[in-house]
Amino acid sequence: MQKIEVCFTPALLDLYAIEDSIVVVIDILRATSSMTYGLQNGAKAIIPVMDVEDCNDYKNSDYLLAAERNGEVVEGFDFGNSPFSYTTEKVNGKTIVLTTTNGTKALMLAQERAFKVVVGSFLNLESLSQWLILQQKNVLLLCAGWKDKFNLEDSLFAGAVVNRLKNDFSHFDDASVAAEDLYLTAKQDLRGYLHKSSHSSRLEQLNIEKDVQFCLQSNICTVIPVLINSELVPLEN
Amino acid sequence: MQKIEVCFTPALLDLYAIEDSIVVVIDILRATSSMTYGLQNGAKAIIPVMDVEDCNDYKNSDYLLAAERNGEVVEGFDFGNSPFSYTTEKVNGKTIVLTTTNGTKALMLAQERAFKVVVGSFLNLESLSQWLILQQKNVLLLCAGWKDKFNLEDSLFAGAVVNRLKNDFSHFDDASVAAEDLYLTAKQDLRGYLHKSSHSSRLEQLNIEKDVQFCLQSNICTVIPVLINSELVPLEN
Repeated sequence: MQKIEVCFTPALLDLYAIEDSIVVVIDILRATSSMTYGLQNGAKAIIPVMDVEDCNDYKNSDYLLAAERNGEVVEGFDFGNSPFSYTTEKVNGKTIVLTTTNGTKALMLAQERAFKVVVGSFLNLESLSQWLILQQKNVLLLCAGWKDKFNLEDSLFAGAVVNRLKNDFSHFDDASVAAEDLYLTAKQDLRGYLHKSSHSSRLEQLNIEKDVQFCLQSNICTVIPVLINSELVPLEN
Repeated sequence: MQKIEVCFTPALLDLYAIEDSIVVVIDILRATSSMTYGLQNGAKAIIPVMDVEDCNDYKNSDYLLAAERNGEVVEGFDFGNSPFSYTTEKVNGKTIVLTTTNGTKALMLAQERAFKVVVGSFLNLESLSQWLILQQKNVLLLCAGWKDKFNLEDSLFAGAVVNRLKNDFSHFDDASVAAEDLYLTAKQDLRGYLHKSSHSSRLEQLNIEKDVQFCLQSNICTVIPVLINSELVPLEN
């Protein structure tokens, strides 16, 4: 039977053998939530790139350019990673080139070695979990974290996935046990739980409360974004 | 007011500014528990060294040599890191040279930059916590982890310290919130909680159940081991 592991930050990814694992990249606030929402709303593809400069390479073409640094839209770009920029009206039929502080980095690192890389968020929690169970592969839940440190929101989501998968997997690492119990502690009021940390000021300073509330909704999407040839596209079942 | 941070593995220590922090090194099973117990029982000093070879440099002298790798005593050494080797009878008046898989590494890394480095374990939880409150300095709780990965036992102890310190500190990072809630979930049955992970087999294979039980006892020691000139000695109040 398969194992579940949780890696709390991309800075630790080298410690994990992921060649035979499906890696779920998690950046709840807000990259992977917006990626999920965008593909659900008809975006053709989302291309994650590392630097703002890489993003610029796609200018003067038919792409939507999205760049976020430290939680804010980079000047001169169409938008950042607020989910409200990823509505059907804005993204249907388009390809989006996106760079974000933490999420893109996690995606790029994962794709170097993983068997497969997909994207998770509370928005697609249930469909993602059901799909993972069916694959019969090892799963590594990779939290994008905050500047390589542990963060609560990504860890809570990892715990939510562990909670749904655990009856179908035989092995769990210490981090997956911790993540699940955090999720069980927090699940009645995810938003309230995030206030417990002093780092919640990081969110408040960005004035993104509506985004946070949006990203903590469960199961409003069924799409599973999968990374193929460096582009995120909807997984075809 | 001061801040509390938790670093779940030495592999992430570079991310933290610790020049003005007291770093508490935590390796519950079993290095920092045995260090605490040994100094409580009259050992003059414990010298942590990185490699078994460094340990050998002290041979043919008046030191007790302790070397552990992957949970077992290295052949040719007096003992490893079982707390039962650190009784008054064995260590009183002696200086011990010790290398362990995870704990020594965390100590060495911390002392490169920290304002002060001390050692924590459930054995000295209360005296350590009371002392930390009195210092009015930032505190970083550094989990030794398991081969640079997150582990439950060190994180639970970090959470126990956060729980005791939090009313006297103003800032908490996400990791300290998580650690405290894990501790609150587990505290009624710490040993049972450690069984939740598949990694508990790591402990069982080592046949150290008595050691584990011993290391999970709270407050049987009052000593606070502090690192001074690369030696752990009892803190003088």
